Amino acid sequence: MSDYETAAAHRVRQVANRGCYDRETVHAILDAGFVAHVAFVGETGPVALPMFYVRDGESVLLHGSRKSRFMRVLGTGAPLCLTVTLLDGLVLARSAFHHSMNYRSVMVHGVGISLPADEKPAALDLFTERVMRGRSREARAPNAQELKATEVLRVALVDVVAKLREGGPNDDAEDMNWPIWAGVIPIEQRMGEPVEWRAPKAS
Amino acid sequence: MSDYETAAAHRVRQVANRGCYDRETVHAILDAGFVAHVAFVGETGPVALPMFYVRDGESVLLHGSRKSRFMRVLGTGAPLCLTVTLLDGLVLARSAFHHSMNYRSVMVHGVGISLPADEKPAALDLFTERVMRGRSREARAPNAQELKATEVLRVALVDVVAKLREGGPNDDAEDMNWPIWAGVIPIEQRMGEPVEWRAPKAS
Repeated sequence: MSDYETAAAHRVRQVANRGCYDRETVHAILDAGFVAHVAFVGETGPVALPMFYVRDGESVLLHGSRKSRFMRVLGTGAPLCLTVTLLDGLVLARSAFHHSMNYRSVMVHGVGISLPADEKPAALDLFTERVMRGRSREARAPNAQELKATEVLRVALVDVVAKLREGGPNDDAEDMNWPIWAGVIPIEQRMGEPVEWRAPKAS
Repeated sequence: MSDYETAAAHRVRQVANRGCYDRETVHAILDAGFVAHVAFVGETGPVALPMFYVRDGESVLLHGSRKSRFMRVLGTGAPLCLTVTLLDGLVLARSAFHHSMNYRSVMVHGVGISLPADEKPAALDLFTERVMRGRSREARAPNAQELKATEVLRVALVDVVAKLREGGPNDDAEDMNWPIWAGVIPIEQRMGEPVEWRAPKAS
């Protein structure tokens, strides 16, 4: 697959070798995450909003209540920056300065395009499938009122950059005999045992 | 402890009962996370940047290279929004519409104040301590050049809101007999087995 044609201003400059524009790498990171942080300029300044998202080919989809502040701003095509970050480990170096973290992140600059009503059901199925594969065929499908209450925005994957760090600490050669343990403490996100729930909505 | 006096514009309006302004809750969430997403307005529009952070009493500290774009923008006191999100579970409802996620998040609106040189060593120790307790006394301390290359910004915890969702799906009463399993799949972040590292920096 070809690389993304990321805008020059959005390419990684500090520690440039951590930048990556490869489609496969970007897709793999987006497909592994559940929460994106979406930055936009709200009425009172910049906002970083955590949102559930799902990748749909060369787009990322976001959804939310039609009445939310988020949708009122981004539904009008305001510029946004969507970032997904997966933390993979704590990096313990011999010097305080070289302590670091291993991570995989993707940053997308773009705008959200509101989906027309007839495309919403299939898009919302993708969110349900992301929670559990096969679930959109089993769960009670959205009714007309639920569809109307929900907006879906499509953000095209065009101006995209991945940034990654992996491996051990980058200790300076002269610190290699400093008498402490150095290495990586891996961090992973795990699913626990499912907990069944039988109570209906309280209100 | 008293509640935060969060600006009206930043209080939770949609699903207002998920909003929380309690200091203890906010501190606990901040102390459990490692990565904040910091939104600010860069040269080309909004940016959501993932950053390591640490809480220091009623502040959050950020650090980075003096030469980074991030520090050039935020070091001048540009408005920012710092968000920390912990994902706790996937919520499987009987209806597609009520699928959700359990999470704890904190959003801070403010500005970053650059720390004077004499406050940097103690602040940087807090980052090293966050990676591993006791580590700042064992690792080789930052030298003059490393201290000069690193900026630390302090963001005061004043305009702060936590948002939380917990528990099972909010299914509508009429869906309670829909014949599928419903409940929560917990998600947790775990530390793995440490991996020792003996090689110095490549370059």
